[in-house]
Amino acid sequence: MAISYPQFIVSEKSPMEAKIIVPSSSSQASPSPPPLSSSMSPVVLTQDELKKIAAYKAVEYVESNMVIGLGTGSTAKHAVDRIAELLNQGKLHNIIGIPTSKKTYDQAVSLGIPLSDLNSHPVVDLSIDGADEVDPFLNLVKGRGGSLLREKMVESSSKKFVVIVDESKMVKHLGGSGLAMPVEVVPYGDLAVAKSLQALFEDSGCVAKRRTLDLDGKVPFVTDNGNHIVELFFKKDIGDLNTASDKILRIPGVVEHGMFLGLATTVIVAGELGVTVENKS
Amino acid sequence: MAISYPQFIVSEKSPMEAKIIVPSSSSQASPSPPPLSSSMSPVVLTQDELKKIAAYKAVEYVESNMVIGLGTGSTAKHAVDRIAELLNQGKLHNIIGIPTSKKTYDQAVSLGIPLSDLNSHPVVDLSIDGADEVDPFLNLVKGRGGSLLREKMVESSSKKFVVIVDESKMVKHLGGSGLAMPVEVVPYGDLAVAKSLQALFEDSGCVAKRRTLDLDGKVPFVTDNGNHIVELFFKKDIGDLNTASDKILRIPGVVEHGMFLGLATTVIVAGELGVTVENKS
Repeated sequence: MAISYPQFIVSEKSPMEAKIIVPSSSSQASPSPPPLSSSMSPVVLTQDELKKIAAYKAVEYVESNMVIGLGTGSTAKHAVDRIAELLNQGKLHNIIGIPTSKKTYDQAVSLGIPLSDLNSHPVVDLSIDGADEVDPFLNLVKGRGGSLLREKMVESSSKKFVVIVDESKMVKHLGGSGLAMPVEVVPYGDLAVAKSLQALFEDSGCVAKRRTLDLDGKVPFVTDNGNHIVELFFKKDIGDLNTASDKILRIPGVVEHGMFLGLATTVIVAGELGVTVENKS
Repeated sequence: MAISYPQFIVSEKSPMEAKIIVPSSSSQASPSPPPLSSSMSPVVLTQDELKKIAAYKAVEYVESNMVIGLGTGSTAKHAVDRIAELLNQGKLHNIIGIPTSKKTYDQAVSLGIPLSDLNSHPVVDLSIDGADEVDPFLNLVKGRGGSLLREKMVESSSKKFVVIVDESKMVKHLGGSGLAMPVEVVPYGDLAVAKSLQALFEDSGCVAKRRTLDLDGKVPFVTDNGNHIVELFFKKDIGDLNTASDKILRIPGVVEHGMFLGLATTVIVAGELGVTVENKS
């Protein structure tokens, strides 16, 4: 997706910002966002470039000697790349990463980031991760990539949780994108649990589908934890989110759902008009 | 444990009762409860014999053409044996069993009970299972045997749920036995989740321990679903149970807990003074 990018406005100025917007030629990540011209003429940035801008901005929050939750997905990947770059440049040191998926674990290992886990570090200083939806109260839908459980475990254990998105992820209410709200369920009785979930949100026109790897719907997607994913699609607002959360969690067989309520402390949005940083009030 | 058993009183009389108290010599299960003498002189019954009496009483609720949830544990085992016996005798037919564990699956297969699962039969007519604790409101603690998740999935999908216990399981409030209240958790971050659970019930003097197979605490017990068990021990009452349930379920990494609130429709208690049947009001 290409977006018209007439002007780049950032709400917070810092010495690192120029580097964020105009990565140095030595950057390991690609594609690099193009430099802004001094005349502020329109520049077209791809969605991936917007994600990268948000990710680089988030990594400004990382300090040496921190335990960092490393998110999963196409946006978080840029942040993990950037942390590795700063470690390699000697601009950060003594970072311990807590990966939120096997995929991120593999990425971080390949980049040489020292890693640990939640059992050894139950308190995380800062987590950085993407999101599938962000509402005006900084509540999120996450997990369309299937990593919602470990993400929620790590991010709810974090003193600060910085969310990085491009502006296409902003919604008026969760579920509002019309895309899936994922629920991780145990494999045993997964279809029965899907029926219960659909019945729970009957008034919101909910349709529940098991995520599968094949078109026939026979081969279930399996999470890092050996569980399955049921996707919920809503036609209407589901009402009070905390109430909805408790109702979902009370269904036996549900392990976790993709609504992250009250967890984000900062949301960084890269969009057509620049980067905005919203902090939890 | 031997209990003095001076007189056997059953609150509900039925034609099957004599068979329940005095199983025929052809019973496949053993040990059989000893026959009551006609002079009502004291009889000593073991705890296992009391469990068997409760189990046989529960199987009176089973009718032909039912889908039956088959519980797990030393008491439920007697009920599964009895259902198989009645099927073999032609006194029941067209029963479909939904086992609540791999262990019960194996038992039922060995006895020739036709089986299915929750995906094929999301609505169960009747479940029969034991419990570790029963409070005056028929709330339960279950799962010290490690099968709480599938038990709760099947039993919460049941129109009727008959609980069978010997009288040693009756408590004034859940947790009151001083024994463990189990919580099924995902393996990833299990010790961090245990810390969160302990902190949640700090005011009740809670101690959380991961269930292990070895004395050193290094080899975790693994459930049928590939998860671990954290055991909670309370020094004091944990207060409102539904509130406690929601708090536990909100911790990311928790899959399910062993409190079964409002699920039992009937509790059959075999004790020193006979069998009592309590129905949900």
